[in-house]
Amino acid sequence: MSVKIALLGFGTVASGVPFLLKENKEKILQSAQSEIEVAKVLVKDDAEKDRLLAAGNDFDFVTNVDEILEDSDIAIVVELMGRIEPAKTFITRALQAGKHVVTANKDLLAVHGAELIAIAKEHGVALYYEAAVAGGIPILRTLVNSLAADKVTRVLGVVNGTSNFMMTKMVEEGWSYEDALAKAQELGYAESDPTNDVDGIDAAYKMVILSQFAFGMDVQFDQVGHKGIRKITPQDVAVAQSLGYVIKLVGSIEETPSGLVVEVTPTFLPKAHPLAGVNGVMNAVYVESIGIGESMYYGPGAGQKPTATSVVADIIRIVRRLNEGTIGKSFNEYSRPVQLAKPEDVKSDYYFSIQTPDMKGQLLKLAQIFNQEDVSFKQVLQEGAKDSVARVVIITHQLNQTQLQHIIEKIDEEADFTLLNTFKVLGE
Amino acid sequence: MSVKIALLGFGTVASGVPFLLKENKEKILQSAQSEIEVAKVLVKDDAEKDRLLAAGNDFDFVTNVDEILEDSDIAIVVELMGRIEPAKTFITRALQAGKHVVTANKDLLAVHGAELIAIAKEHGVALYYEAAVAGGIPILRTLVNSLAADKVTRVLGVVNGTSNFMMTKMVEEGWSYEDALAKAQELGYAESDPTNDVDGIDAAYKMVILSQFAFGMDVQFDQVGHKGIRKITPQDVAVAQSLGYVIKLVGSIEETPSGLVVEVTPTFLPKAHPLAGVNGVMNAVYVESIGIGESMYYGPGAGQKPTATSVVADIIRIVRRLNEGTIGKSFNEYSRPVQLAKPEDVKSDYYFSIQTPDMKGQLLKLAQIFNQEDVSFKQVLQEGAKDSVARVVIITHQLNQTQLQHIIEKIDEEADFTLLNTFKVLGE
Repeated sequence: MSVKIALLGFGTVASGVPFLLKENKEKILQSAQSEIEVAKVLVKDDAEKDRLLAAGNDFDFVTNVDEILEDSDIAIVVELMGRIEPAKTFITRALQAGKHVVTANKDLLAVHGAELIAIAKEHGVALYYEAAVAGGIPILRTLVNSLAADKVTRVLGVVNGTSNFMMTKMVEEGWSYEDALAKAQELGYAESDPTNDVDGIDAAYKMVILSQFAFGMDVQFDQVGHKGIRKITPQDVAVAQSLGYVIKLVGSIEETPSGLVVEVTPTFLPKAHPLAGVNGVMNAVYVESIGIGESMYYGPGAGQKPTATSVVADIIRIVRRLNEGTIGKSFNEYSRPVQLAKPEDVKSDYYFSIQTPDMKGQLLKLAQIFNQEDVSFKQVLQEGAKDSVARVVIITHQLNQTQLQHIIEKIDEEADFTLLNTFKVLGE
Repeated sequence: MSVKIALLGFGTVASGVPFLLKENKEKILQSAQSEIEVAKVLVKDDAEKDRLLAAGNDFDFVTNVDEILEDSDIAIVVELMGRIEPAKTFITRALQAGKHVVTANKDLLAVHGAELIAIAKEHGVALYYEAAVAGGIPILRTLVNSLAADKVTRVLGVVNGTSNFMMTKMVEEGWSYEDALAKAQELGYAESDPTNDVDGIDAAYKMVILSQFAFGMDVQFDQVGHKGIRKITPQDVAVAQSLGYVIKLVGSIEETPSGLVVEVTPTFLPKAHPLAGVNGVMNAVYVESIGIGESMYYGPGAGQKPTATSVVADIIRIVRRLNEGTIGKSFNEYSRPVQLAKPEDVKSDYYFSIQTPDMKGQLLKLAQIFNQEDVSFKQVLQEGAKDSVARVVIITHQLNQTQLQHIIEKIDEEADFTLLNTFKVLGE
């Protein structure tokens, strides 16, 4: 007997779902133990329906979601519309109607996940969303199943393809931020308003979900610090190169003695670090844990078929559980009380790029500021002055957030100094 | 209620199992939904038992396997003795006694897997072995679950840590094979007889298992071509570098129009390929598929805690299924008839290193040989002659196994030429 599913939305990713169901029919049948049939597809209006039918799509397109929610033959609803509304309302109603839900909607999950998970639990139905983090990379289910015996201590992720494409152009070809953005927009990777991608908001959503799966903590979106790539200059990139680093936008989750710290920020990665080679629109999630040690999961973070592969894997899992009679298990059962780190426990090496007039004693003055805060230098680079202005670059040994704050304030107090940029540096 | 397990063997990996069960107790309980207790541990003899007790190990050590196999309280037997016998007999008897089995024994699984899987099926018990391929990398379960909707077209794996450590020394530091082997032996990575590691036998075992999970085909060990790293010279490594490649021992499984080809062989990897950066004892499995496209799974291929993490993940899965009442599912359900590729469908770029006397017309003669076989050159490098002997290096465009055979024969027929080495080259 076949299991009937309905798609909400028929954009790029959604159309990949019937493609995979057909192309890999036999393998999917072995795994799911039932055939899977796309019974209905919700589209916006009659115009879209007519356009899709004219293009040769042979599905039962409907324009009213009730035709899906009230259809008792439909067991699984696959939401691929994106954005918060009406997706949230449709998912809520589907769960309440006893239907299992698969979604790739990371914004929704990151902001309203707890609410939706509770509704799913209440109604004994499944809510799966492997595709919500890093598209085609099977990271969520791997954390649930394969790292069940492990304790994760840190997660680092290059999880935004658009900004990683831009950073790759900036690093490998020396492009400016503006040129990289223009190219990303030309290729359709970046939207006309690129805020979500370049300011680290999209990556922060993914870090919220990864915090739940890797650390069992339901961190809120506004507890995730995020700083984007807009301010990175070709000079920063060149200095990073010359000191043996690659700059990337990295999301990190780390467990400190006082609790978790979650942030998204441009980060200097040592060139030998596995994440340093993750280029273009590719994504990767790097996991440090007490059992495995270090592992990395690499793949495309977006795109039709990669995302649809994760969506169909979720659908297969649900069908399988329906056949086994074990449906209703939460996607992620790991749960601990949320505890956030104190600023003094949040430690990292840091990069400072400081502009000073080219005169005697300036480096000494800088050294004194860092010394007062008990912070020592790992690498220092003073560049040849131009127009009587010098640039000093400092990479420090570990400092905590309190020290960082004090140093920034003290540099700001000195009229001579302009703090151009400060970024996190991943130690070897 | 707790689930009782028994360990067969208490070597390095085995002792990592109780470590993880204790260290991550709470998380494991959330996932398994039962406590897991190490009830008995099989050791070789009383001397080993006394030694382990004296060292402070607080377990019920037994020296007769019957004490485990006849103990109806023990639900899961964890085999970590390695080698074929007595592991095979013990696992067989455990399965026949209705016990679920977890093992990390790749040799055994690669050679006698089908037989053991059939016994497990017959008795409705589970036989899981995530740790058998690439230790801490969760590749098998990921192929089963997350790539259930996908069709894999090629798998490339750096899956032998010892040879990869040696190749890393040879590539990054220009060491000879002999020096690299001595260092690997000194550090305990290589055994005094390194055959299994350096000749690609260990990697071939893993390719057998990966063929089952990624392609559903039960390829036999003797159907896997394997060629090791013994013959790689510093000259080969240097030429590879100068042409933009890194040499590694790579296992590959590829589906051609006529069937599967599985082999382990030194391979030139373009420097930008994700596998090219997998260094030291680290392992990685790179997967090409029609859905995800390209993905890579990176981590430690061996070691106490990484391997134990995979073993405990298997144990948790069994306990979970015991609690759900769904035990007995095969670890891998993907199955298709085995079909091996015809030689003319097995295609790759190739590297040839040829020694010739330094005299006119030699390159022309070589060019004629390749031309007769319709094989064109991608890169050619002739090095300055020393002692009237020149070395010509050729990287070809794609050629098939029949062409390769003919070219090798023709070069051998020419008394002037000595074929020093020929290796696979991964195209961009």
